[in-house]
Amino acid sequence: MAVDGETMLIKDASIVEGGRLCRDVNIAIDGGRIAGIGPGIKDESGDGEVIDGRGKLAIPGLVNAHTHLAMTLFRGYADDMELMPWLSEKIWPLEAKLTAEDVRWGTKLGCLEMIRSGITCYNDMYYFMDETAEATKEMGLRAFLAEVVFDMRPDQIEGVEPFVRRWKNDDLIVPAVGPHAVYTCSEETLLKTKEIAEEHDLLLHIHLSETRSEVESFEKSSGKSPVEYLDSIGFLSDRVVAAHCTWLSPKDVSIIAERGVSVAHCSISNHKLASGIAPLDRLQEAGARICLGTDGASSNNSLNLFQEMKTTAIAQKCAHSRPDLFAAGEVWRMATENAYIAFRLDMGLRAGAIADLSLIDLKKPWFCPLADDNIVSHLVYSAQGGVDTTIVGGRVLMRDGVIPGEVVILDRAQEQFNDLLAR
Amino acid sequence: MAVDGETMLIKDASIVEGGRLCRDVNIAIDGGRIAGIGPGIKDESGDGEVIDGRGKLAIPGLVNAHTHLAMTLFRGYADDMELMPWLSEKIWPLEAKLTAEDVRWGTKLGCLEMIRSGITCYNDMYYFMDETAEATKEMGLRAFLAEVVFDMRPDQIEGVEPFVRRWKNDDLIVPAVGPHAVYTCSEETLLKTKEIAEEHDLLLHIHLSETRSEVESFEKSSGKSPVEYLDSIGFLSDRVVAAHCTWLSPKDVSIIAERGVSVAHCSISNHKLASGIAPLDRLQEAGARICLGTDGASSNNSLNLFQEMKTTAIAQKCAHSRPDLFAAGEVWRMATENAYIAFRLDMGLRAGAIADLSLIDLKKPWFCPLADDNIVSHLVYSAQGGVDTTIVGGRVLMRDGVIPGEVVILDRAQEQFNDLLAR
Repeated sequence: MAVDGETMLIKDASIVEGGRLCRDVNIAIDGGRIAGIGPGIKDESGDGEVIDGRGKLAIPGLVNAHTHLAMTLFRGYADDMELMPWLSEKIWPLEAKLTAEDVRWGTKLGCLEMIRSGITCYNDMYYFMDETAEATKEMGLRAFLAEVVFDMRPDQIEGVEPFVRRWKNDDLIVPAVGPHAVYTCSEETLLKTKEIAEEHDLLLHIHLSETRSEVESFEKSSGKSPVEYLDSIGFLSDRVVAAHCTWLSPKDVSIIAERGVSVAHCSISNHKLASGIAPLDRLQEAGARICLGTDGASSNNSLNLFQEMKTTAIAQKCAHSRPDLFAAGEVWRMATENAYIAFRLDMGLRAGAIADLSLIDLKKPWFCPLADDNIVSHLVYSAQGGVDTTIVGGRVLMRDGVIPGEVVILDRAQEQFNDLLAR
Repeated sequence: MAVDGETMLIKDASIVEGGRLCRDVNIAIDGGRIAGIGPGIKDESGDGEVIDGRGKLAIPGLVNAHTHLAMTLFRGYADDMELMPWLSEKIWPLEAKLTAEDVRWGTKLGCLEMIRSGITCYNDMYYFMDETAEATKEMGLRAFLAEVVFDMRPDQIEGVEPFVRRWKNDDLIVPAVGPHAVYTCSEETLLKTKEIAEEHDLLLHIHLSETRSEVESFEKSSGKSPVEYLDSIGFLSDRVVAAHCTWLSPKDVSIIAERGVSVAHCSISNHKLASGIAPLDRLQEAGARICLGTDGASSNNSLNLFQEMKTTAIAQKCAHSRPDLFAAGEVWRMATENAYIAFRLDMGLRAGAIADLSLIDLKKPWFCPLADDNIVSHLVYSAQGGVDTTIVGGRVLMRDGVIPGEVVILDRAQEQFNDLLAR
């Protein structure tokens, strides 16, 4: 397998350009970046690996804008419950027993699923972030990682800067700062996280206005909506990635758009927990940047942006009684280009961009019939996985459906889950 | 490959029993039926084919309770449009040019996708039903087929009885009677279809209360809701499979439950066309039988009941602000047991039942971690296809992910679509 610095040529693949299918394209990869893309492009070194792209569609990497990856270990552990009993009877007691080793295997398990569905980069907030960082590097994915900060756990904010220093110059791991939410962090904590983020030029990852009751009780005690409050203390900017944003007033929507905040919309999680349907129509009208996240596998229960794209599009159409809204191309942008801007990633299928991409097998029923102008529709509405090759930073993580070591990881994750339950 | 009458033994598979994972089970198949199931069950003939079930989950066949399979040829042809322009500018002009050959390849294409997602039986209403029947038989699936009946096309009702006589004794094809809807069929037509269905003891397949405007305009002209009207003419009974049922009054819900009508709920299609969210909570409370359908691939754009189960569960939770409603087990039942009752199918993983089942590879990230009590959650919320073997009536249609002849069908369907567009 090629590693950073090695060269590689994907030959005769198809790509999407301007929403249309473009066939017989070569993609040369060198030094972890796309060296050239187009018909007839060659591997300049002449001795790189050649990947046969015939019958395959190359897509740029999808970005999972909000998750808690280690919680993949809790997949299916507790479903179909009201939010508070779910948290207090199931999730929190399990998290209280959580070890670094659990996080390590939960992370690796989550990486497997993302590699299989074309996610090359994810944005995480959780505990034991050094373990998550190491496991992610071993799997070869790119990640924005933030140790979650709560007032209840005052030690955590102390750990943020050391974590940032440890990972600041890594090629795959980008440290971020993760104040949990306005109802779990004081103003002092929020401002401190903002200060750290500005000092090191990092993203701020926060949960924002996820549930109605959370927003109502915050308003009752503070007289402001969570968004208004964050704006009033100067927290909001284009370095903020705000997960959920389900319950927003028209004023909140304007603030988010004006401040350049990136919204990480989590359609499946919001539906499964019955949190509500985010006003993506108003956010989009106001010009806000919308990205897509899976949230944790404990409330999804998948880590798959193909599912997320389809659910987002159809749920928004239905909520606004407008089948013409949220067309496939717009939703595809949320999983790709919008996220590249939000996360400041030099990504996309073009020369010079980092080589984070996947190949999808087009010889599947869900891609048939194929026309020049229906490829984005197929990606959003009918693709059922089928990603067979995933490359991050020029390194092949999965080839023809095979991820080296997958079965060992599945077995270890299973053991770790059994051990956690027995603890 | 085994055919009807041959024997087969699936060894050491897992199954779901009472919602729990049950390991090391053998399933003996003989004469198209399950001859025995349990630990230590043997192939009595001693010379049947043996399928290694280790690491696999056997599930009974899923039933797609409402589709228009030949429309798989229109997948991605027109999306993101308002309903009327979608129909009048895109779908109807294409259908006006439709030939039996289009239907043949659209049907085969649709069968491929269903075989890959564990659907062993589907309920269809469309044109050129003899072609659909033949193509379905060649693919080996089970189907309930009804030539659609409209008043606009008076020849069609004349064709119903001949079609019924041609297919009445087939082992895979079950003829049904398909009056399109209350707004396209006169009372005379509806009563005639009912009479034919009763005479031959067949199911009646009809679209019912799909969109708000359809229900409102029907009420305006007739003074009754479509459900009240059908009940007033004596149309409703447990032989009726009513697709959609999105817009129902409380009285409609009671009538549907009392008459034993089976509802074919199409969550993804209803969302994508922005038709609305069906009141499954009230239907369920009233004791109505709910099954799941994909509708046609022109409005879905998939034919996958795993997607349908997840979307149904999470959309209903969100619509009723109750994450505890529509638990995985209930939704699983809609795709299986409820449908077996609705379609009078002697199905399920038990001795004597018809051998319609699939094997799913459990060694995938989305089934990890696996516990005895989370298997149904995984099937509903996290399974991403992964069906690798599908058996109908004891005949293996897909083995280890391979459907013989698949690529030829994909190529032919593509050619047929190109030809249709050029016509």
